[in-house]
Amino acid sequence: MHRTKIKVVEDALDSNNTIARANRDDFDHAGVRVVNLMSAPGAGKTTLLERAIPEVDARVGVLEGDVQGSMDADRIAHLHVPVVQLNTGAGFGGECHLDANMVRSALPEVRLEEIDLLVIENVGNLVCPAEFRVGEDARAMICSVAEGEDKPLKYPLMFRACGLVVVNKIDLLPHLDYDLEKLRHNLESVNPDAQVIECSARTGEGTEAFARWLSMVAAEEAAAV
Amino acid sequence: MHRTKIKVVEDALDSNNTIARANRDDFDHAGVRVVNLMSAPGAGKTTLLERAIPEVDARVGVLEGDVQGSMDADRIAHLHVPVVQLNTGAGFGGECHLDANMVRSALPEVRLEEIDLLVIENVGNLVCPAEFRVGEDARAMICSVAEGEDKPLKYPLMFRACGLVVVNKIDLLPHLDYDLEKLRHNLESVNPDAQVIECSARTGEGTEAFARWLSMVAAEEAAAV
Repeated sequence: MHRTKIKVVEDALDSNNTIARANRDDFDHAGVRVVNLMSAPGAGKTTLLERAIPEVDARVGVLEGDVQGSMDADRIAHLHVPVVQLNTGAGFGGECHLDANMVRSALPEVRLEEIDLLVIENVGNLVCPAEFRVGEDARAMICSVAEGEDKPLKYPLMFRACGLVVVNKIDLLPHLDYDLEKLRHNLESVNPDAQVIECSARTGEGTEAFARWLSMVAAEEAAAV
Repeated sequence: MHRTKIKVVEDALDSNNTIARANRDDFDHAGVRVVNLMSAPGAGKTTLLERAIPEVDARVGVLEGDVQGSMDADRIAHLHVPVVQLNTGAGFGGECHLDANMVRSALPEVRLEEIDLLVIENVGNLVCPAEFRVGEDARAMICSVAEGEDKPLKYPLMFRACGLVVVNKIDLLPHLDYDLEKLRHNLESVNPDAQVIECSARTGEGTEAFARWLSMVAAEEAAAV
């Protein structure tokens, strides 16, 4: 039984990579760089984007991934940037992650010619989103200090998949038993090369570093997936 | 392509329900009631169990579900209750949830004859765990106030699947822009029958209500899945 399961997973990942490559070709053709932004539910992806997007030195668009609803897309729309909602509940079986095919299905709605950088806000989940490339140039994740310092050890694939780890909600540190050094130690044990930004999307402290990172990705030359 | 996907999901859920029924028969035979405890990563499942288990009026055992590692099982073991670690990363493809077959594979390790109540701590995820029954009598979930009030609207299946919603980390309320009334309103729109407990597993405030709920489940007569 396990063997069949794993075979199915491998086939799915193969076809995913093929479609991710097609997405990537389209992004490259349009000169658009792409960030896959991931986190647990409620870690602050949308709030951080609300803070950072106005400070990014590039034309930004957002693809909002959710199981259902368009609350986050509505929030991003207030920034007057192009935003497209992609729901996994409508036609994709309520999946817990975005995959390359879902992103491809949304591409006709994304006005690539009007942007330099597409931020794909993935479904809130620390497991499966890390397994599916969608054609992105860079992967970033947010971990909230309210989640505890053990998350890199419990979800190593996610922390390893990302070049940038944003430690969010640092305004709560005085009110938590949270040891930032322990988080950094745990992160280093699974991904010693990760860049780390500490910030509070709520107060705005440190969010300019994330805006600079997005600007940097937008300015990069196209690279292989 | 979608149709094939959905067919696969239906087959998986069918066989899952068959195995959940077998689990349930074993639990009933042993006179053990079972709680499936779910939440997003870092919402405080283990900390709440550490607080509540010593106050439960029944013999409690715990089945710890994680993608990898045994940190939570090690913490529960300090309570001197039977605990078994079940990792989805070892043989189950790193799944983002527990299913009935995984729980069944762990049952030989669970000393049902020594307990009245088995708490199954699911993988931290607000999507897929809600789709897979494992043979439980009751489902409960924890949502942390640090995650925001919108979660019932974004993950309605999870909030609908649970008879009890524990609102945790209320000690942080003075430091957040969080409206408990809004959370209750959003929850009511997706699951008006849900029981709600507000608590702080960190300070212990309100956790006795969760212990009482566990005691109540342990004392219930067996019911149909």
